[in-house]
Amino acid sequence: MSASSHLLISTALGQKGHRAPVWVMRQAGRILPEYLAIRNSLRDFKELVETPHLAAEVTVQPVDILGTDAAIIFSDILVVPEAMDLPYNMVEKKGPSFDRTIKTLEDIHLLNTKDIADRLSYVTEAIKITKKALSGRVPLIGFAGAPLTIFTYMVEGGGSKTFSKARGFLFKNPEAAHILLQKITDVTIQYLKLQIAAGADLVQLFDSWAGTYNPAHYSEFGMRYNNQIVSAITEAPTTIFAKGAFFALPELGQSQANVIGLDWHTSADQALSNGCQNKVLQGNLDPCALYGSFKDIEKATKQMLSSFGSQPHIANLGHGVYPDTSADKVKCFIETVKAHYFSKAEAV
Amino acid sequence: MSASSHLLISTALGQKGHRAPVWVMRQAGRILPEYLAIRNSLRDFKELVETPHLAAEVTVQPVDILGTDAAIIFSDILVVPEAMDLPYNMVEKKGPSFDRTIKTLEDIHLLNTKDIADRLSYVTEAIKITKKALSGRVPLIGFAGAPLTIFTYMVEGGGSKTFSKARGFLFKNPEAAHILLQKITDVTIQYLKLQIAAGADLVQLFDSWAGTYNPAHYSEFGMRYNNQIVSAITEAPTTIFAKGAFFALPELGQSQANVIGLDWHTSADQALSNGCQNKVLQGNLDPCALYGSFKDIEKATKQMLSSFGSQPHIANLGHGVYPDTSADKVKCFIETVKAHYFSKAEAV
Repeated sequence: MSASSHLLISTALGQKGHRAPVWVMRQAGRILPEYLAIRNSLRDFKELVETPHLAAEVTVQPVDILGTDAAIIFSDILVVPEAMDLPYNMVEKKGPSFDRTIKTLEDIHLLNTKDIADRLSYVTEAIKITKKALSGRVPLIGFAGAPLTIFTYMVEGGGSKTFSKARGFLFKNPEAAHILLQKITDVTIQYLKLQIAAGADLVQLFDSWAGTYNPAHYSEFGMRYNNQIVSAITEAPTTIFAKGAFFALPELGQSQANVIGLDWHTSADQALSNGCQNKVLQGNLDPCALYGSFKDIEKATKQMLSSFGSQPHIANLGHGVYPDTSADKVKCFIETVKAHYFSKAEAV
Repeated sequence: MSASSHLLISTALGQKGHRAPVWVMRQAGRILPEYLAIRNSLRDFKELVETPHLAAEVTVQPVDILGTDAAIIFSDILVVPEAMDLPYNMVEKKGPSFDRTIKTLEDIHLLNTKDIADRLSYVTEAIKITKKALSGRVPLIGFAGAPLTIFTYMVEGGGSKTFSKARGFLFKNPEAAHILLQKITDVTIQYLKLQIAAGADLVQLFDSWAGTYNPAHYSEFGMRYNNQIVSAITEAPTTIFAKGAFFALPELGQSQANVIGLDWHTSADQALSNGCQNKVLQGNLDPCALYGSFKDIEKATKQMLSSFGSQPHIANLGHGVYPDTSADKVKCFIETVKAHYFSKAEAV
């Protein structure tokens, strides 16, 4: 089966099929007991990310167990800053943390931008193993962090309530910010092309911290580099998920990305009336809906599907699935999407 | 000088004066050395909140030192859950934390809703002392947390990356959520009326976590109760600051609130074209702009002022001033606003 004959890929290319394809952000990892068994047998999260045959195994699990229409490679957006010589630790229940952060132009000049294929070969290796294991059943999604989100981690050093260091950097040192963002962008383009060459059928940019920036900054420091990336990636369809950046919908609509991911705050209507009417949309059930009863999940999922009307749509949550969600509830979401065939009015 | 003759109050009532009035969220506390001297002489943050003459002293400081057009009473939105028998601790550099949280309907039935005047008399006492000290120089702003934000703290027990407990509660137990929100609303109405009776000239609802909810939930569980409050408060003008809730602009525009606060993500244009054209708008410089040079702050402030055009406007930041901001930079922001007189075209 060629990649483009898969429902996810044909939908990403703008063809509305008989139903919406479905996958779940963070489906690989977090919730499946089968994942936790492997994860708990290892030293830490990073060992799993860096061990290709295990990363491949947990990538395939949700396809087998949950019945998703796509796999997404198990990895982390922070492998890119690490390849650039800013290593991170993943602190249990706290999230990522960097020993060193970017404070000055000098720090930026010291970053590595070479040997990306070698340094991230564990990811491309995992992709190759996954593709074999999937043997064409479903397509494989590759991904990277959007440059401004990677910049945010590099400057902030981890999570934050306000991200005031990263946001402040743009006010205090915009020229240095542009130099850093260009370096990240160049590495990210290389990295995504390597993922596609290894077998990724679609690539998604996760701009997790987009919504922390003001609209003018997000345009200048965020979308400028997202646009460079989606324009450079001609080998596979692309998705931008700019969490919280409702203000950027018109610019997202004008980007070269095939798919725009919506979080649970942004309705299909809002995206369509703010310039995204020519895009495939992805999303956007509130992940907390999966804490409800099976009946309520079914109802909320159907409402969500209907809200996209005749627009080509890839069903997903509006954020990564939360760790305390039951796998059965995720399955209920997936099965509801798969049972929802479009009416004639919708399948235009 | 009567309250309504003050620039802030007349603007809040919809009369555009010769310039925008200006104050800064979190101006009392956080940044002034004079504040830190008092704060550091005490056991903790709560001792300052609960000691009327000291709370009054730090309330007046920014009027004297920074030249703001209003004082805002030094307090915390979490005095309300505490008065309802859910005490909190303010953990240095981490934020608030509750020993007990709301998990069941039983927990909700155990909450106190009586003796609010007594239990929060330290706030009304601080307001009375402040009013004397201000002796009519500038008006005094009172405030409370919006019910859904207080609910969020009560269920979550503190800050969170996802607020999935509080958001999940709305999916799992909507009836109990309404019972809790109604209790919080009843107490909040009482509390704000007490503040006004003690001397507050305007009251603001801080809906700090509005932006974490999905639009349907925010309408059902957020705005419903905000509307009860602003409709019940007829004694003074009201402001709603629903941080992150861009999706609620049309409902905010239809509320009885006089003033709608905007965060740094939501432009004046967006508010005006989404139903808030009949409201006074407050905001919304990115607080990180105050990390820039004096020249850049002046430029960004003027741009912000111009963006509100002929709309009645109260200048402010789009979020509370961050603790590591220099007082001189805040002063630069305030002085730029005070020097910016409206042109004839704007002062319609």
